[in-house]
Amino acid sequence: MIRVALLGAGRMGLTHLRTLRALPDVRLVVVADANPDAAERGRAVGGAERATTDIAAAIRAPDVDAVIIVTPTDTHALLIEQAARTGKAIWCEKPIALTLAETERVVRTLEVTRVPFQIGFMRRFDPGYAAAKRKIDSGALGSIETFRALSRDTYLPKPEFLANSGGTFLDMAIHDFDLARFLVGEVWEVHAWGAVLVDEAFRAVGDVDTAITLLRFESGALGVVETARRSAWGYDIRTEVAGALGKVVVEAAQKTPMIFSRQFGFEGDHYESFPDRFEAAYRLQFEAFFDALRTGRPPQPSYEDALRTLRLALAARQSWREGRPVRVADASG
Amino acid sequence: MIRVALLGAGRMGLTHLRTLRALPDVRLVVVADANPDAAERGRAVGGAERATTDIAAAIRAPDVDAVIIVTPTDTHALLIEQAARTGKAIWCEKPIALTLAETERVVRTLEVTRVPFQIGFMRRFDPGYAAAKRKIDSGALGSIETFRALSRDTYLPKPEFLANSGGTFLDMAIHDFDLARFLVGEVWEVHAWGAVLVDEAFRAVGDVDTAITLLRFESGALGVVETARRSAWGYDIRTEVAGALGKVVVEAAQKTPMIFSRQFGFEGDHYESFPDRFEAAYRLQFEAFFDALRTGRPPQPSYEDALRTLRLALAARQSWREGRPVRVADASG
Amino acid sequence: MIRVALLGAGRMGLTHLRTLRALPDVRLVVVADANPDAAERGRAVGGAERATTDIAAAIRAPDVDAVIIVTPTDTHALLIEQAARTGKAIWCEKPIALTLAETERVVRTLEVTRVPFQIGFMRRFDPGYAAAKRKIDSGALGSIETFRALSRDTYLPKPEFLANSGGTFLDMAIHDFDLARFLVGEVWEVHAWGAVLVDEAFRAVGDVDTAITLLRFESGALGVVETARRSAWGYDIRTEVAGALGKVVVEAAQKTPMIFSRQFGFEGDHYESFPDRFEAAYRLQFEAFFDALRTGRPPQPSYEDALRTLRLALAARQSWREGRPVRVADASG
Amino acid sequence: MIRVALLGAGRMGLTHLRTLRALPDVRLVVVADANPDAAERGRAVGGAERATTDIAAAIRAPDVDAVIIVTPTDTHALLIEQAARTGKAIWCEKPIALTLAETERVVRTLEVTRVPFQIGFMRRFDPGYAAAKRKIDSGALGSIETFRALSRDTYLPKPEFLANSGGTFLDMAIHDFDLARFLVGEVWEVHAWGAVLVDEAFRAVGDVDTAITLLRFESGALGVVETARRSAWGYDIRTEVAGALGKVVVEAAQKTPMIFSRQFGFEGDHYESFPDRFEAAYRLQFEAFFDALRTGRPPQPSYEDALRTLRLALAARQSWREGRPVRVADASG
Repeated sequence: MIRVALLGAGRMGLTHLRTLRALPDVRLVVVADANPDAAERGRAVGGAERATTDIAAAIRAPDVDAVIIVTPTDTHALLIEQAARTGKAIWCEKPIALTLAETERVVRTLEVTRVPFQIGFMRRFDPGYAAAKRKIDSGALGSIETFRALSRDTYLPKPEFLANSGGTFLDMAIHDFDLARFLVGEVWEVHAWGAVLVDEAFRAVGDVDTAITLLRFESGALGVVETARRSAWGYDIRTEVAGALGKVVVEAAQKTPMIFSRQFGFEGDHYESFPDRFEAAYRLQFEAFFDALRTGRPPQPSYEDALRTLRLALAARQSWREGRPVRVADASG
Repeated sequence: MIRVALLGAGRMGLTHLRTLRALPDVRLVVVADANPDAAERGRAVGGAERATTDIAAAIRAPDVDAVIIVTPTDTHALLIEQAARTGKAIWCEKPIALTLAETERVVRTLEVTRVPFQIGFMRRFDPGYAAAKRKIDSGALGSIETFRALSRDTYLPKPEFLANSGGTFLDMAIHDFDLARFLVGEVWEVHAWGAVLVDEAFRAVGDVDTAITLLRFESGALGVVETARRSAWGYDIRTEVAGALGKVVVEAAQKTPMIFSRQFGFEGDHYESFPDRFEAAYRLQFEAFFDALRTGRPPQPSYEDALRTLRLALAARQSWREGRPVRVADASG
Repeated sequence: MIRVALLGAGRMGLTHLRTLRALPDVRLVVVADANPDAAERGRAVGGAERATTDIAAAIRAPDVDAVIIVTPTDTHALLIEQAARTGKAIWCEKPIALTLAETERVVRTLEVTRVPFQIGFMRRFDPGYAAAKRKIDSGALGSIETFRALSRDTYLPKPEFLANSGGTFLDMAIHDFDLARFLVGEVWEVHAWGAVLVDEAFRAVGDVDTAITLLRFESGALGVVETARRSAWGYDIRTEVAGALGKVVVEAAQKTPMIFSRQFGFEGDHYESFPDRFEAAYRLQFEAFFDALRTGRPPQPSYEDALRTLRLALAARQSWREGRPVRVADASG
Repeated sequence: MIRVALLGAGRMGLTHLRTLRALPDVRLVVVADANPDAAERGRAVGGAERATTDIAAAIRAPDVDAVIIVTPTDTHALLIEQAARTGKAIWCEKPIALTLAETERVVRTLEVTRVPFQIGFMRRFDPGYAAAKRKIDSGALGSIETFRALSRDTYLPKPEFLANSGGTFLDMAIHDFDLARFLVGEVWEVHAWGAVLVDEAFRAVGDVDTAITLLRFESGALGVVETARRSAWGYDIRTEVAGALGKVVVEAAQKTPMIFSRQFGFEGDHYESFPDRFEAAYRLQFEAFFDALRTGRPPQPSYEDALRTLRLALAARQSWREGRPVRVADASG
């Protein structure tokens, strides 16, 4: 039985609490949130033993083995460091931090303390991506030549979120950058173009709502990542990897297994957003985390993945801002 | 908070315990099974408060509001009657019983005691079938003309199961017969053909492993139900309803959202069996049951559905045995 | 160069003329039709050398090697016999005739004269059905257990056509009966149910517009054929064969390779009718016919196929009329 | 009746001859090829009246209304000019020429002579792309935001072809550049990356076998074109256009309408190459050309399309060579 503290009972926190509640051999000990109502609501939703507004206390509580960090992004680094120093296993929503400097500082702490750490790139656990990874690793595609990803969020983010999110490259495209690394390998250089086509609020915070990023992998393979922050037809996440012998395409084209046919046509439905499209991935990432704790294997994706994928996203953002290709190793920010 | 006793901690019982454990506002009070190890294992899986081998005691426990019956088929009737007489809400795996006489006796008890009752035809809760039902009820198909269903189980049942299952028509085709009633309406007459094509063990117990049943609905519409007890390629459940203006097809053709392409071809994967194909339906049927209890609406599908669908399955079995069409109203057994 | 006379320049005749015109090494010598305008129009469409109203003369013309018979059904038998006696190769639209007696008489003539003869069951040449046949013949399905076919015509036939068509079983379901024989083998017994759900004109001519026919193959396999004479959503032809090791499904679900996505949904288009769905099959059946003539192999499907498939359709019609199962060998009509 | 000379009876010439042969109201008068055997073979395949090795004579023959130019690329400009000066209608395989200067010279001749001219961007006539165009023009997508295209040829070109083809951008990506213009509008700027991942022969002729090109449209929309010269799984052509209200995806995912299912999986087939994927488009582009001649409308795509699409491809090639974004208006070459 692994005893868990969940930190941050906002919208995603509640989603994770529902998932955690259903896991066998996991006990939700405490839900911590600076807002006492949120903490109590989280406790009830998760069936946890207690609620608290004292996040630090929840972390160091002796009956807590692992912390699940779902607090605002700008608190991740500090909470990870606190948990690491008290020897707790850590699962944290991406990102660790929005800058390289802060992320590297946290990574050093994690390297020293050697606590188990997993970052929340949940797409790796989606059955589609996991199957693609297995197929690639099997050699069935031969040498990899191209990577292609497209992500469209259904709903525009709120303006107050925009300002602190790190922007489209760090907040959203980062999921596809992580898939690029997961499925193909490290990226050498990027070139990104962006545009404000949907909402001028993006321009006001120095961001774009539509972007395309070219990738050149260290292996020589080429790739492209398309990112759009609004989709009229629903959540649209598609990825493919092509090699000398074959390709894999990950695409969830239809949500409900029902087709309606009417005069000379047919119709079906799309996914609405990430909670329905990645429902399984949210559960499977936690199962993998707790399995790693039980077996002593290092959790994946690791803090190194968090750092490397961040650097890739920073390089893309810098390329867009400076209007020139940027090598990932040269990314600053 | 609804307080629940689960009766019968076999394979399906454990599946239901995992589902129930994750439901908010539901508390698993007791898991009862004649086998003390099974009861204890069920308690642990479900995170229930206590385990017992005394099923009758679990039913009448004052801290139990509702019972979930997952015991062997031949015990359903008795347990329903016990629970009804102590005023407990009841969810029961199909069927109530394998004969009309016994089912009608239970139905009378349910009519008198007026406890909430729901029968486990879970396909009605699958998002595909639920969407089909909404589309039909919207009038988008116009007048319904034909119904078409096919079910193929992946794995042959065990011989010891065969003998007590009621046979292919009552144990397996009954799901499609229920869908016929759910989506189109009552059936007037059936004609069934059967064959032993897979395993002679079916013949030994007076059963078939492959069957096709013609349906004539009271409305005049025609239908056909195909049933096969073994499928090399996986669980294969498809249904369609066609009307004057349109049709709906419910089909989950691909399990994992990943396609692999290789020389001049592509491939994907099928569902393996009901736990993966109907994962959502298993959860949604319980959510609907508890919602009904909370709001005071009568649960669906009802004991009347249990009775009517049984009569339809009995008519099909009789038609196959007697080699002639049988009116549903004339079914015996 | 094979020199061809086309007999019957109606709607299907013109379709065939366009197809024949494009075939290499085939020369359209004469188009014959009792209606001089139709004959001349056919000549122009096909780029033929001459037109005539004298069908008999066209058949026996010394510069004609093969005749393509697309005249009304009730003239097929006589024209086949004329062509056979002058030693011409024959391709004829199905059926040879609507009765067993007349068909058997023609078959005897063909057996005696030994001219090459091909009957127009064009679905066998559709790339989907041809691929299914190859897969089945390869052994990849193992022993065949079930056959399932559904055909829905888009447009109701005209009343004047209805009366002389042989009815739904002989005019329409016959295509699926032929596929059953082509893909699985000979049928032992049938049981058919029918209904008038769309248009009372069918009842007036002693016919049905909706039918379902159970098949029991000589091998023991079971099958079902669904037939509907009107489809609001378009031409709907689907077939599957399932065996111990695998299944094949032939289905052309989408006509145009374009999907449009809009709010939380997507849509595509269906085929409208046989000329678009079976465009390739119409061409490929003629290529196969002329290839057979060039190589001296007997054309397929043969007059024996015409006779056996007719007997199967007659058995189904009789079963529907008499309300009882009918053995194919006992079919009369 | 339009009287046609076909110039160039190589592989594509023969394909076009088969297509032309089947068109009503078109008469193939002469097939011209410098190689007398090729000319005669083309005559036979097309059912033409005569063959010749004198291409200039075929162009100016008084019984020729229109010329179909399928000769090697470096002869297109001269033959177009000859035909234009004798007042013949012209259909020409893309491109007019591989340089802007030569293309502009031809365009001036066409502007002066005002003969009907159509360039062979056949994808515009594919039913999928035509349906996408209609949907976009209907306003159903709202304002267009992104364009996405991927093309993979199945077979590597021969080395001798490589050297004179204009390279991957001018020979292959040009089809997607034309679709970008057709479906979205003119392009302002491009940035292209390329790599040699498949065959070093590309490097030897200063070319790449894999490329990705970013597009910024004059409207502000963004786009990306992926190009690969070898595909292990078959011909892979996919395009999508996304707007504020919806998207269209053109994709021919399956060639034969048959799916084979085996243990827990299913499989189907891909198209092999352009002759099977674009069979209909090849026919429809000629039907459109001859319809334009009959009705007096200017054929589409026009010489202006040929020029503008060439300039876009040249800009992409220049961007790749110079490693920097290039404005289409500034393209040289």
